[in-house]
Amino acid sequence: MSKQQTDSMAAADNGLLHRRFFLKAGALAGTALLTAQSSAENRPTWMKAPGKGMSEAGVPSRYENHVKRLPVSRPGTTGSGASRSPLEHLEGIITPSRLHFERHHSGIPEIDPEQHRLAVFGEVQRPLSFSAAGLCRYPLVSSIQFLECSGNSGALIAPSPVDASCSVLHGLVSGSEWSGVPLALLLEEAGVKPSGKWLIASGADAAGMSRSIPLSKIYDDAIVALYQNGERLRPGNGYPMRLFLPGWEGNASVKWLKTLQVTDQPAMTKDETSKYSDRGEDGRAELFTFEMGVKSLITSPSPGLDLAAKGLYQISGIAWSGAGRIKRVEVSTDAGRTWAEAHLDAEPMPKSLSRFRAAWRWQGAPAVLLSRATDEAGQVQPTRAVVMQGRAPGSFYHYNGIQAWQVDASGAVRNVYV
Amino acid sequence: MSKQQTDSMAAADNGLLHRRFFLKAGALAGTALLTAQSSAENRPTWMKAPGKGMSEAGVPSRYENHVKRLPVSRPGTTGSGASRSPLEHLEGIITPSRLHFERHHSGIPEIDPEQHRLAVFGEVQRPLSFSAAGLCRYPLVSSIQFLECSGNSGALIAPSPVDASCSVLHGLVSGSEWSGVPLALLLEEAGVKPSGKWLIASGADAAGMSRSIPLSKIYDDAIVALYQNGERLRPGNGYPMRLFLPGWEGNASVKWLKTLQVTDQPAMTKDETSKYSDRGEDGRAELFTFEMGVKSLITSPSPGLDLAAKGLYQISGIAWSGAGRIKRVEVSTDAGRTWAEAHLDAEPMPKSLSRFRAAWRWQGAPAVLLSRATDEAGQVQPTRAVVMQGRAPGSFYHYNGIQAWQVDASGAVRNVYV
Repeated sequence: MSKQQTDSMAAADNGLLHRRFFLKAGALAGTALLTAQSSAENRPTWMKAPGKGMSEAGVPSRYENHVKRLPVSRPGTTGSGASRSPLEHLEGIITPSRLHFERHHSGIPEIDPEQHRLAVFGEVQRPLSFSAAGLCRYPLVSSIQFLECSGNSGALIAPSPVDASCSVLHGLVSGSEWSGVPLALLLEEAGVKPSGKWLIASGADAAGMSRSIPLSKIYDDAIVALYQNGERLRPGNGYPMRLFLPGWEGNASVKWLKTLQVTDQPAMTKDETSKYSDRGEDGRAELFTFEMGVKSLITSPSPGLDLAAKGLYQISGIAWSGAGRIKRVEVSTDAGRTWAEAHLDAEPMPKSLSRFRAAWRWQGAPAVLLSRATDEAGQVQPTRAVVMQGRAPGSFYHYNGIQAWQVDASGAVRNVYV
Repeated sequence: MSKQQTDSMAAADNGLLHRRFFLKAGALAGTALLTAQSSAENRPTWMKAPGKGMSEAGVPSRYENHVKRLPVSRPGTTGSGASRSPLEHLEGIITPSRLHFERHHSGIPEIDPEQHRLAVFGEVQRPLSFSAAGLCRYPLVSSIQFLECSGNSGALIAPSPVDASCSVLHGLVSGSEWSGVPLALLLEEAGVKPSGKWLIASGADAAGMSRSIPLSKIYDDAIVALYQNGERLRPGNGYPMRLFLPGWEGNASVKWLKTLQVTDQPAMTKDETSKYSDRGEDGRAELFTFEMGVKSLITSPSPGLDLAAKGLYQISGIAWSGAGRIKRVEVSTDAGRTWAEAHLDAEPMPKSLSRFRAAWRWQGAPAVLLSRATDEAGQVQPTRAVVMQGRAPGSFYHYNGIQAWQVDASGAVRNVYV
């Protein structure tokens, strides 16, 4: 293939290719079969005897045992900490429920659904109590949406880049199909008084996690979630029921939902004052920064998924925004000097992960990979420098800066700042 | 509420309600809280001590242990049979991978991905061999789509209705996000000769499952699937790679994909002649009936999910079509005398499960629940009588008739023919 032909396939500099030219750029992963017929006739061990039998539940291959969450607890505790999704080993926009991130403040309660009730009271005409079985009689709604901890990517505020994997740095975001009852229906049944403006949601964990939510969000798209990815919620994600607030910081989607008190003002709970508030360099704290910003992330290549040899690769990643749909994602392999538009699977769904992909020919020289998302509200993912402006030291919530992965000449990938 | 008001909420006879009138039809599942405040202060056992700690993988609640697949093997074998999805316990359109149906002909091989290769040969310019790692370098595509065994619902050909659950009758259909390499890319790289018209796909199981697929389907939307619901395929669904043919009978989506031979004609393998061919009453067999018909199914209420008391209920179910998107679903609670349009979550995706729902007030009298799907090609789900026309006795593939569930005066639900 001539230099001229190769150049005509470029979507941006440093090897980014138009997707339709990916193949024509040369032999790829397919290795020529010298003796195709003999290969076809070669019967491996596992074809020589019947395999394993039927089962009540399928399990992953033992060759995939390395794909697991990264659980880290605060020293001296077992129940305060987080388990991060292994993003660099996942594809598409659904996170398997067993690998969905979790963040707990006092561990995972094991709740008997027969004993659990959700109480709705406060500024309402009719205080009500709901069991999980009762809620399942309402017409449910289902949506595929992301959930992100507002502390996700907080390690990126460090003055020097932390040498860690994509999971460790960014694994507090996941995508699921959530099914539940529109909370507006339950409030309609309870009859909110004119004085009702906020909802104080609290959980049945030992931490009594509680957050104040403006009723406008409840009427917009909040649900009491009962199912995740088709099955009932797992205990780590709120069984038997949790609040789910699409696009808002994960902590506000209170798990093990126990009470919903309608009030005329926010409660200023411990979980929205001592934690989950953004501190500015002027010493003031900003409360109720619920919506997650527009963000994207290349999951492959990423640290630990080093490039074995020169040649053609898929750049694959996820993008999301609390404001709605992802409109486009651009990628760069030359640290932002030039950009190419990435391919998105189908039409992005609102407040969902979107998977983006680009074709890249790595020529063996050092490269810096970036992605930059734009949402339907017109918000463009900011650089790290912009995100860091005006933050108090150590204030790590709501970090959505552009992530840079450096590929060195050996093919090793690591976190860098550009 | 007056009789007149109640009638104005009807969407069809026998209690089917317009969705927006669901709540106004009267007190629902919410029980009045006599002492809301005391309920809020009541701390259950699980709030009095920290809960369980972090983990590498989340697990379902032990209170959901009854939600599992139904594995049945042929007598005398361990590896020939099926595991059915517990459809009546699931919601939305994603089936958790552990609960995805499986159908095996000689068990589940445990394949080492380092040793496994996919060989592409036959009527091609360049025979090629691919490892799973090599395939992961191509730009993948992801889609949420159904997979259905062509033998699903075959029990409905019995002359008298079988008394069984929704899972037992219909559990050979599931929905997933499938991610993989468009097979057209691999064939483009191999260079199909003008003589190439069919592809013979075979698997690395002991049964050597093999099927003939016309190349037109491959160029349309076939993929070599590597990921299901975000993680790598599980062994029961073809690890490390399977063919995936959206909308076509599951058996043709060959698992543990080992060889793809391009040929000028179909191979007439055992798996498309002795099995998976439709026999007519004239004694002839129809081969290559790949596309799955338009179909729907009420998953709740269904046998085993009996109605505990009169009142309001969600009717929830799934609809799908191999021809593309579901356009609408209608439901009836009076055995088809009157119909109401069901609610669909968002815009249905092509060749995917779609979840439909309707609100129903059960008044305690016997009722017969039906659903009827229409797809974007204009196909309407047929009655059982129509589906049975012209079938040879015992020919059970491709049954997509309307399912009827009878609710008796006690609230018990069972399979009936109407």
